[in-house]
Amino acid sequence: MYGAVIHAPGDVRIEQRAHPRITEPTDAVVQLAATCVCGSDLWDWRGINPVDRPTPMGHEYVGTVVEVGDAVTNIKVGDFVVGSFFASDNTCAICRAGYQSRCENVQYVGACGAQAEYLRVPLADGTLVATPGQPDPDLIPSLLAASDVLGTGWFGAVAAEAGRGKTVAVVGDGAVGLMGVLAAKQLGAERIIAMSRHEPRQKLALKFGATDIVAERGDKGVTRVKELTAGLGAHSVVEAVGTQEAMMQAIRSTRPGGHVGFVGVSHGVQIPGEELFNAEVHLMGGPAPVRRFLPDLIGRIWRREIDPGKVFDLILPLAQAAEAYRAMDERRAIKALLQP
Amino acid sequence: MYGAVIHAPGDVRIEQRAHPRITEPTDAVVQLAATCVCGSDLWDWRGINPVDRPTPMGHEYVGTVVEVGDAVTNIKVGDFVVGSFFASDNTCAICRAGYQSRCENVQYVGACGAQAEYLRVPLADGTLVATPGQPDPDLIPSLLAASDVLGTGWFGAVAAEAGRGKTVAVVGDGAVGLMGVLAAKQLGAERIIAMSRHEPRQKLALKFGATDIVAERGDKGVTRVKELTAGLGAHSVVEAVGTQEAMMQAIRSTRPGGHVGFVGVSHGVQIPGEELFNAEVHLMGGPAPVRRFLPDLIGRIWRREIDPGKVFDLILPLAQAAEAYRAMDERRAIKALLQP
Repeated sequence: MYGAVIHAPGDVRIEQRAHPRITEPTDAVVQLAATCVCGSDLWDWRGINPVDRPTPMGHEYVGTVVEVGDAVTNIKVGDFVVGSFFASDNTCAICRAGYQSRCENVQYVGACGAQAEYLRVPLADGTLVATPGQPDPDLIPSLLAASDVLGTGWFGAVAAEAGRGKTVAVVGDGAVGLMGVLAAKQLGAERIIAMSRHEPRQKLALKFGATDIVAERGDKGVTRVKELTAGLGAHSVVEAVGTQEAMMQAIRSTRPGGHVGFVGVSHGVQIPGEELFNAEVHLMGGPAPVRRFLPDLIGRIWRREIDPGKVFDLILPLAQAAEAYRAMDERRAIKALLQP
Repeated sequence: MYGAVIHAPGDVRIEQRAHPRITEPTDAVVQLAATCVCGSDLWDWRGINPVDRPTPMGHEYVGTVVEVGDAVTNIKVGDFVVGSFFASDNTCAICRAGYQSRCENVQYVGACGAQAEYLRVPLADGTLVATPGQPDPDLIPSLLAASDVLGTGWFGAVAAEAGRGKTVAVVGDGAVGLMGVLAAKQLGAERIIAMSRHEPRQKLALKFGATDIVAERGDKGVTRVKELTAGLGAHSVVEAVGTQEAMMQAIRSTRPGGHVGFVGVSHGVQIPGEELFNAEVHLMGGPAPVRRFLPDLIGRIWRREIDPGKVFDLILPLAQAAEAYRAMDERRAIKALLQP
């Protein structure tokens, strides 16, 4: 089968790779209907994460189960499934508490490389969720979004305790930030401030439910959020970037007693303890336990209540994966869907 | 009147000071029945906080109201009152959300120096809570504890979401840590791990409800907590020290999805973002909104359900304040009560 392999920063190739097989009785093999490029893949593409050997890429996927191991009971061949980038047993104490991304038996699905025609998914029963039937083709981008960016933005909004009567600010206008806006709206937030300088992303944020746009960044952005909230700051702030500037912008934009949900993969961030102590805000974040949200998110998509697939503004055949990376790196595309 | 003034590290004197007067119509003046020395006062005594001029000391107090401003309506002359170290209006949006220590009109009561015979308390209606009647003398130490260390330890336990069925670990065996143990017990925690190397403090921790003692510190302490919790870490961890080692010990002792409540005044702490991201724990802390808890805590003390006053293992006349500081600095005393 064909799949994407990164050889060096800026060098992603579609190559012939070994067809995935069942290696554990809890595995499933999925024939992918769609996959995509993640903002976090760009850390490799840009050389910020080291690339020291050829590595299969991708960790977002939807598709049809073609093979299951002997111990798999919830998922069967022919099911159309959505899964998270972390495989989880969904039965341990940590999973039962809702933190499947830190499952006691967690495995990184992306190690197998989901930008491919087929994918082996470990712990299939605890990882994959089947859709109610075969999806209409126009639902596939939204289901694919649920696999990561929607689940991650949703977790950010939940971690920030977005909800009825709340003012929510979202730092970051990448796909995850935009999904944070959508999630805040769905969770009932009264006012949603999207922090974005890019007009196409501002438009999408407004479409997903943003009520205000703040173009300023850093402490100027903080000042604007304070102006919009009677000087207090937002109740809930979603941090969807992962840099020092974005994290401090999030903490400073939150009112005392408010909540920061941080889902940008942290790169070189140091949080000063004294400032956090005096800010008196709640901090919660990390790799999103997407599995917790999948049944609910699939339901909302299936009933066409949300349309997160709109975040894909570039659709390419898998063979053009490198162009998908380039377009996202150059911010010509918000998020690129790949068709195997 | 007489009150404590710090002139330099290690140099606290009892001096004649101006008798406090009503300066704002929302003020009250309280004749103090008892006051005490706080672990945070030792930062000044030790020269870790700069002492650049003679400064009145103390921020913990109980006593009888002797004068009120014209705008004070909830509190009247003759009331026996307990107050927090932060004056709050208790009516603004931040107070209503339970974060009175970050009130929009917050004032630091300690600026007036509570290690004294009398104290001016600003925003009396929103700051002071009257006891149901004149307290028996043996209740006074416990009521004094509610003014800060009990309220702070309680906040730490609430911020860490200590509660039924939970395993709670407490980092720090100072008065606040010990009150965190007491709070965790009262909040229904199933198992309470006190991290302490000092035998008298271990004994007090056991008396307040600890079920396990861990004497190891740092990563060895983390390993012991993991061993006691099936490898997962505690659900809730209270950090009551304020150093880098204690904060990292708290974060690393918490299971994914668990909660750290940090109430040690942060000194030079830097939290690495990547470690926090991967730890996936909730962080909440800061100056305790003691006022939120005072009515409940006074009720528990009045009904003799809790005896936090046991944390005072040294009682001295106000005139011997310097000895109280020395005894705490040298860890000969956990906490010293001063009688004006």
